[in-house]
Amino acid sequence: MAVKVAFQGERGAYSEAAALRFFGSEIEVMPYKTLLEVFEAVQKRRVNYGIVPIENSIEGGVNETYDLLLEYSLMVSGEVNLRISHCLISHLNVEIGEIKSVYSHPQALAQCRRFLQTLGCEPVPTYDTAGSVRIIKEKRLGDAAAIASERAAEIYDMKIIRSGIEDNPNNYTRFFALSDRDSPPTGKDKTSIIFSTKHIPGALYKALGELAVRDINLTKIESRPTKKTPWEYNFFVDFEGHRSEERIQEGIKGLEEKTLFVKILGSYPKAPIE
Amino acid sequence: MAVKVAFQGERGAYSEAAALRFFGSEIEVMPYKTLLEVFEAVQKRRVNYGIVPIENSIEGGVNETYDLLLEYSLMVSGEVNLRISHCLISHLNVEIGEIKSVYSHPQALAQCRRFLQTLGCEPVPTYDTAGSVRIIKEKRLGDAAAIASERAAEIYDMKIIRSGIEDNPNNYTRFFALSDRDSPPTGKDKTSIIFSTKHIPGALYKALGELAVRDINLTKIESRPTKKTPWEYNFFVDFEGHRSEERIQEGIKGLEEKTLFVKILGSYPKAPIE
Repeated sequence: MAVKVAFQGERGAYSEAAALRFFGSEIEVMPYKTLLEVFEAVQKRRVNYGIVPIENSIEGGVNETYDLLLEYSLMVSGEVNLRISHCLISHLNVEIGEIKSVYSHPQALAQCRRFLQTLGCEPVPTYDTAGSVRIIKEKRLGDAAAIASERAAEIYDMKIIRSGIEDNPNNYTRFFALSDRDSPPTGKDKTSIIFSTKHIPGALYKALGELAVRDINLTKIESRPTKKTPWEYNFFVDFEGHRSEERIQEGIKGLEEKTLFVKILGSYPKAPIE
Repeated sequence: MAVKVAFQGERGAYSEAAALRFFGSEIEVMPYKTLLEVFEAVQKRRVNYGIVPIENSIEGGVNETYDLLLEYSLMVSGEVNLRISHCLISHLNVEIGEIKSVYSHPQALAQCRRFLQTLGCEPVPTYDTAGSVRIIKEKRLGDAAAIASERAAEIYDMKIIRSGIEDNPNNYTRFFALSDRDSPPTGKDKTSIIFSTKHIPGALYKALGELAVRDINLTKIESRPTKKTPWEYNFFVDFEGHRSEERIQEGIKGLEEKTLFVKILGSYPKAPIE
């Protein structure tokens, strides 16, 4: 039976592309409307894995994913980076000069702002990139185009007028593969954790010191509000190494003494930039 | 002549309430469509100040503001915290049982999710909280309500059906007052800076050490992607103390040696939680 992988969005979403890159083309992809539903599907074992965006190299962290990682007891079993390359997509017989409006998710519209200005088109915000391809297809809009992935054009059998229309080519999204367990060591791993600091001066510095003195290389730190007390934060930290290594275990033990809590999200093989 | 203060949103926006709380009621408030336009208005001295949201105690940092603070050369001259309390607003003759749909910004709809579920109404996402009051007023929607501030109801002369409808009462937004200079010391100040770390293990730990060894109390750290190289970050840091203090000056000098760059956003009086 094929491995079932949940993702948020419609068929053709960038999350679907990330799932296929990470797990290969033999999987069964399962689209869900919200990230919350993806977490639920993994938790309730309706799927084997969930693939969720964690950060984008231009927009930053995906807050909703961070908050759900704290709330749910899922493990990170892998990461994958996907170059986000936007396409201008229309009906087969439409020429670029005929396009008056361009449909897409506000973030995709913002990432193609300069291209859209040159084109002189009106941007129309929607809830989803792939979903906007479906909209212009179903409504048979002949003077409109959508911004979405190459895959979305394939799925809806529409034409790619232009590809690579994003203003900044350094546009990557990092995804986590979530499951009920993390991954065995490969020698080139990363570990993700969450902790909150004590309410004393220098608390974050002292916590990070537990990693630094053991030469554990921090690759990412993100702060999120606790939502319980205004202006108090949880820290989401990624570092190099596997939690089965002695050095990492000592670092985590040290962290536990210097913080209010530590939650281990898991260890997984480090992904190449793309 | 009244002090001119720019804010993003329509009249009745929470940013307008923050401006009035911070500067008093004698100011001339100037609404702008985007945060970018607020920064431009301050930079080009069309206004004396701009008031911009920097973080919310539930949603986290306002990414667009952080990115504009790096890009523009404005100074932070003050901070103000505003309790965000949402109201359900309708036409004067409408009863709560008649409401079928509720218009508001997606974030406000999300923050009142439980209340809306109890009410059994369809949420309708819009671009602005105060703007949705204007929509239901102008379109004369008798079976709809909007979620916005008390002030938005006053401005559009509409009825508050319920107030305090947010699910989590710990809902505060922190705003910066931007200008061409920061503020003189008061004895109870904060300083905001941006820096990026060198690409060596323990770089962030060593940078924060320059503050910690001088007992400088870090109150907030936020990471934002550089947008130039994937998975490299700038850090936005707030700490207690004024940049005119010797201890702070030494800390900043130490930071400059341990980082690639330090940009001082300014020192300003510390605001109470509300």
